[in-house]
Amino acid sequence: MGRATVRLDPAFAVGPVRPRLFGSFVEHMGRCVYTGIYEPSHPDADELGFRTDVAHLVRELGVTVVRYPGGNFVSNYRWEDGVGAKADRPTQLDLAWRSVETNQVGTDDFVDWARSVGVEPMMAVNLGTRGPSEAVELLLYCNGDPGTQWPDRRAQNGHVEPHDVRVWCLGNEMDGPWQMGHKTAEEYARVAEETARAMRRVDRDLELVACGSSSRGMPTFGTWERVVLERCFDLVDHVSAHAYYEPLDGDVDSFLASAEDMNRFIQSVVATADHVAAVRGSDKRIMVSFDEWNVWRQQGFDGESSLAVREAPELIEDVYDVTDAVVVGSLLATLLQHADRVSMACQAQLVNVIAPIMTEPGGASWRQTIYHPFALTARYARGMVLRPAVVCDRVDTAAYGPVDQLVVTATLDDTGEGGADLTVFFANRSRTEPVELTLDVAAAVGAAPGDWTLVEHLALYDDDPTATNTRLEPDRVVPRPGGARTEGDTLTATLPPTSWHCIRLTEAVSR
Amino acid sequence: MGRATVRLDPAFAVGPVRPRLFGSFVEHMGRCVYTGIYEPSHPDADELGFRTDVAHLVRELGVTVVRYPGGNFVSNYRWEDGVGAKADRPTQLDLAWRSVETNQVGTDDFVDWARSVGVEPMMAVNLGTRGPSEAVELLLYCNGDPGTQWPDRRAQNGHVEPHDVRVWCLGNEMDGPWQMGHKTAEEYARVAEETARAMRRVDRDLELVACGSSSRGMPTFGTWERVVLERCFDLVDHVSAHAYYEPLDGDVDSFLASAEDMNRFIQSVVATADHVAAVRGSDKRIMVSFDEWNVWRQQGFDGESSLAVREAPELIEDVYDVTDAVVVGSLLATLLQHADRVSMACQAQLVNVIAPIMTEPGGASWRQTIYHPFALTARYARGMVLRPAVVCDRVDTAAYGPVDQLVVTATLDDTGEGGADLTVFFANRSRTEPVELTLDVAAAVGAAPGDWTLVEHLALYDDDPTATNTRLEPDRVVPRPGGARTEGDTLTATLPPTSWHCIRLTEAVSR
Amino acid sequence: MGRATVRLDPAFAVGPVRPRLFGSFVEHMGRCVYTGIYEPSHPDADELGFRTDVAHLVRELGVTVVRYPGGNFVSNYRWEDGVGAKADRPTQLDLAWRSVETNQVGTDDFVDWARSVGVEPMMAVNLGTRGPSEAVELLLYCNGDPGTQWPDRRAQNGHVEPHDVRVWCLGNEMDGPWQMGHKTAEEYARVAEETARAMRRVDRDLELVACGSSSRGMPTFGTWERVVLERCFDLVDHVSAHAYYEPLDGDVDSFLASAEDMNRFIQSVVATADHVAAVRGSDKRIMVSFDEWNVWRQQGFDGESSLAVREAPELIEDVYDVTDAVVVGSLLATLLQHADRVSMACQAQLVNVIAPIMTEPGGASWRQTIYHPFALTARYARGMVLRPAVVCDRVDTAAYGPVDQLVVTATLDDTGEGGADLTVFFANRSRTEPVELTLDVAAAVGAAPGDWTLVEHLALYDDDPTATNTRLEPDRVVPRPGGARTEGDTLTATLPPTSWHCIRLTEAVSR
Repeated sequence: MGRATVRLDPAFAVGPVRPRLFGSFVEHMGRCVYTGIYEPSHPDADELGFRTDVAHLVRELGVTVVRYPGGNFVSNYRWEDGVGAKADRPTQLDLAWRSVETNQVGTDDFVDWARSVGVEPMMAVNLGTRGPSEAVELLLYCNGDPGTQWPDRRAQNGHVEPHDVRVWCLGNEMDGPWQMGHKTAEEYARVAEETARAMRRVDRDLELVACGSSSRGMPTFGTWERVVLERCFDLVDHVSAHAYYEPLDGDVDSFLASAEDMNRFIQSVVATADHVAAVRGSDKRIMVSFDEWNVWRQQGFDGESSLAVREAPELIEDVYDVTDAVVVGSLLATLLQHADRVSMACQAQLVNVIAPIMTEPGGASWRQTIYHPFALTARYARGMVLRPAVVCDRVDTAAYGPVDQLVVTATLDDTGEGGADLTVFFANRSRTEPVELTLDVAAAVGAAPGDWTLVEHLALYDDDPTATNTRLEPDRVVPRPGGARTEGDTLTATLPPTSWHCIRLTEAVSR
Repeated sequence: MGRATVRLDPAFAVGPVRPRLFGSFVEHMGRCVYTGIYEPSHPDADELGFRTDVAHLVRELGVTVVRYPGGNFVSNYRWEDGVGAKADRPTQLDLAWRSVETNQVGTDDFVDWARSVGVEPMMAVNLGTRGPSEAVELLLYCNGDPGTQWPDRRAQNGHVEPHDVRVWCLGNEMDGPWQMGHKTAEEYARVAEETARAMRRVDRDLELVACGSSSRGMPTFGTWERVVLERCFDLVDHVSAHAYYEPLDGDVDSFLASAEDMNRFIQSVVATADHVAAVRGSDKRIMVSFDEWNVWRQQGFDGESSLAVREAPELIEDVYDVTDAVVVGSLLATLLQHADRVSMACQAQLVNVIAPIMTEPGGASWRQTIYHPFALTARYARGMVLRPAVVCDRVDTAAYGPVDQLVVTATLDDTGEGGADLTVFFANRSRTEPVELTLDVAAAVGAAPGDWTLVEHLALYDDDPTATNTRLEPDRVVPRPGGARTEGDTLTATLPPTSWHCIRLTEAVSR
Repeated sequence: MGRATVRLDPAFAVGPVRPRLFGSFVEHMGRCVYTGIYEPSHPDADELGFRTDVAHLVRELGVTVVRYPGGNFVSNYRWEDGVGAKADRPTQLDLAWRSVETNQVGTDDFVDWARSVGVEPMMAVNLGTRGPSEAVELLLYCNGDPGTQWPDRRAQNGHVEPHDVRVWCLGNEMDGPWQMGHKTAEEYARVAEETARAMRRVDRDLELVACGSSSRGMPTFGTWERVVLERCFDLVDHVSAHAYYEPLDGDVDSFLASAEDMNRFIQSVVATADHVAAVRGSDKRIMVSFDEWNVWRQQGFDGESSLAVREAPELIEDVYDVTDAVVVGSLLATLLQHADRVSMACQAQLVNVIAPIMTEPGGASWRQTIYHPFALTARYARGMVLRPAVVCDRVDTAAYGPVDQLVVTATLDDTGEGGADLTVFFANRSRTEPVELTLDVAAAVGAAPGDWTLVEHLALYDDDPTATNTRLEPDRVVPRPGGARTEGDTLTATLPPTSWHCIRLTEAVSR
């Protein structure tokens, strides 16, 4: 049994919770789009062909922004193939995933869907097989006022009003040799620079995301960001980071500590961006767009070239267990802890493809284990993120050395009229040891003793950490009431091994 | 009162006056084309839609060659949008100037207009968003003999005879970060090399102009020219130079001395070109195409991205005063003084946009102050350019140190049958001091005493150096008779402060 | 009279004869395609427009693989211009050879022809004016299964079955400044890398050929191959080599020793490839695709830009003499001697353009002198290539110093049932000295005395080494019986000056 003492102080705040941290990602890959969000023949499909059962789960998940249409897919995508009358759209072979792309969903369709489920669309342009001209044409198609060729075409396709997409990714993972049209840092820096300049000539207020590294392990990590920002510093607002985690060679202890990697990743990119700023004598702060992250069991993947050519194949449909959910919860906590410099984050992906939501073609949809920490964090992380002071045991890991057994983050939200909501998220990363948690509630938020009330303690864990949700047993793993209790000013709880928690308190208005 | 003695000697000749020094520039920008040279609804429009009143002023101006269609515009221009039936031409958003481009004027139209006003068309290819292939296609469209795709299309569009455009600019200001598809020196050198080689494969006798620097103040100035010529030396004939002048922070003295900058610019580019020649052991001499120059008040321009999107907007319609005209006159004199190495020069631009000719949509057209020194120089600079020996006072300037109060150039033209015409151009760059000029006419040209006759002294100045020409008062500032007089072999004249002069003499045939 | 002793030993084998060493090349150049292999109006044309008389000569020549459609032509070729209904194909100006290209033969037509004459098609993609996207589109058009855009278009054009082209050249001679879109080594390495990766994403089992050097005399020779392979080592199978030989300034002795250059060329490329392998710690062996080689009198060629624009012009229709045939024979022998590392070789070209086969438009077709050594080598070089031990006189050459008078190569083919065929090829490179040849047949192949029988000795030579074959005298130079004789275990023969020989023996089954 480990012990942990957590102290919180509103004076030590990271910054406000950014809604865009709860983003997701829809790529034309596997069954994310086709038989995922879109399936015209499904009984629950709406008049545009989108599945309303999936849309319901998306809304409940609390997703705020959705990146589209890739991912690797975008780097050989011809966006014009996906607009206009559906019968006239060509079927292409996508080389990112060797999949047959029917183009029945495209830019207009996605934006329609995004608006219908209340999420902000975030688009990527193809800088793999294409360049600045096509990026500008897509931007004009999406955002331009009628009167010139591309906006007029959008209007002809039924969308007179501009889509007004504000956030644009300048390509995807261009540092990766697997990417169609992959680039050296210098090559990418130049094409991103010219593309950004041209796009800003259309609309100088866009938010532009430069490609950072595809993982912290890339051979060009760090250098890539420096070279790109040296060229693009004045032209972009965000630099991307992507990370996927899995138990490598069965090392679950290190896997549970994946947030350590994400933490170092963010710190390194921030340092690089601020170095470039320093050299330029600039106060501008480039933000991190962590626009692909999740648990993904990649080990053993034989390379894209080995994939069979198919239409909407079942690609990387990882089934997540309790351990995965605890890791996802701790990654979300880590993103919140960097809310001062991480402006956006997109869990990859939304449906079927390494996703919180699963579907059966023509049939059911359900929530994977990782759905729950995402949904609860997105719902209850509100107000300011607090920087917690945690004293706890350490867990030894092969990848990161000894790490804190607990990952903790907290948000404090002024409810108006003197009251406030406090939500604290915990992940216990030990596979064997529970934690006896002590939290001084009054000290935590500087309130008078007795002002705080425990609203709820939801816990995600299982005697079997490999338990999963499936079509037949979709609610095998769901949050359940935890045992937190307050006694005077002290909240105590026992957090089982491999568990994730959301503890909510509220302050009496009487203060 | 300053004093100046000028001596001329036909043995000290720079070289013949090159007619192409009196070039101009028509860019698809602001109202240069639309409601400038072209306005189908104007009462004076011809059957092709071009304004005959403007054409009349162009002919009177003496323009010899006109560069087209940009300028920054060309770097995102799709030339094929501007040919064929006018009703079928797409309307595009030009990103150079954020203007709505209707494409009602295009390549064929411009060449028709150029031929109709008796000027040589000089074309630029788009090396910003496009490359060698499209350059070759445009070249074939313009100059090819029917029998293959592109010349056949020209013929279908009503022009069976090739346009036979001889001078081609390999892009525009590719060193400038404001340029769509801007390039590093190495990048531009390579694309210019490959484009030039491909264009010469179509026609090895073309005259090709490589982009030089957009101003002498560019951070890459000099290095750019060296890197480009190291790659393209054998493939190009000219390297471009662009310069715009204005009184920076009200410093009119330096502004009046702008010719000093132009002079150093030309010398530096010549030195660079000859350095590259020396390294190659080549006797080839690369020429300077000064294909954008003028007075332009840029200070305070907020950047292209801040421009509102409009069709044929009133962009940079500078209204020129007497001081500006004196500067323009001195710049023309400087170009003539480098006639051995400056092969072409284009005042930017021809109509409305920082232009000698102004128009009112549907209404009048008139001559700005700067029209007059251009027109007189173009008309009377004939024969050989002489290198004058000038002794005069100096004017202190913040930008260039002490500079000669007078700018002087002269041309001597054999009229056949033993006679000759001598024209001397002066600019007095002092804002306060007149000059008492003495010119020994006989010594000047090695003639016998008494052989020379003063034909005319035209002077441009005003008690108010800020006087301008406007629609309502279009002839407020025009050349007027100056007071030059000959006494024996000596010509004397008083040149007022901030003034420009054209003094013409002729030699008796009796010699 | 020189003397030569040749010893052969089956234990010293280079490796198996690779059928692809007997490749050829059809470029859209001059009359190779039009009035060469294709001439619909010819009396002998088949229903597709191909000349059956030429096809007959191609089959007799023993060509195995044919490279298409260039050569320099490919670097500005738009393959889609050459597919679909012939009436709709555009006529273009090819800039490689300034020829009018009617596109009446294109990809589908060529593959049809190749299959009909029993040769393997080998295709090149355009990396001059185009890049990875168009390469992938062509690959999909050729090899893709119906169901997506490009394979469907092929099916619509009458070819439901994929063409299944296995060998693809990544551009052509991109190191040569004469090439449209020529590249630096670094530029080419990058575009070849990205193109190869994209093409392998379509089909990972393709055989890809990276461009090597256009000749051993290129200023970038060696460095080019290193830089390209450093980038593309894992992605390509072959690196190309091109070489053309001629008597420079009348130096026939050096010309006859051209195989020395080819030999050093191959050795150098192999060394470079193995160096890159060593640095990577790889056992992979990159092979040499010698996909352009021949005798070609280039001296005095005035450059491509000087060519008149014509359709199917008579371009470089070299008429070959006996000396040329001896050189060609010795080059084939050299290629065989490197069968361990030379995977393919294409004589350039097949018909009319520096070609073994000549045609008259509407009329006859005939065999040039060089046809014969190619045809005999292709027919009789079978089984294993033996590394001969040759003791012979030396010939002094200005270009290569003293070289062996004889070029010798031999192949030993197990006929099954204990028998074997031995073929030995000789070239006597002395212009003045015959050779008295001694070959110990029994020692040669380790057989018992008396087991071998001389089947045939064919010799190519003439009292006039400048004798040629022409339309009127098409068989002036043909192989004729040589005087080889066996006495006991010893074969002797006299090989005249400037001669080529094919000596065939067979082993009795009784062994």
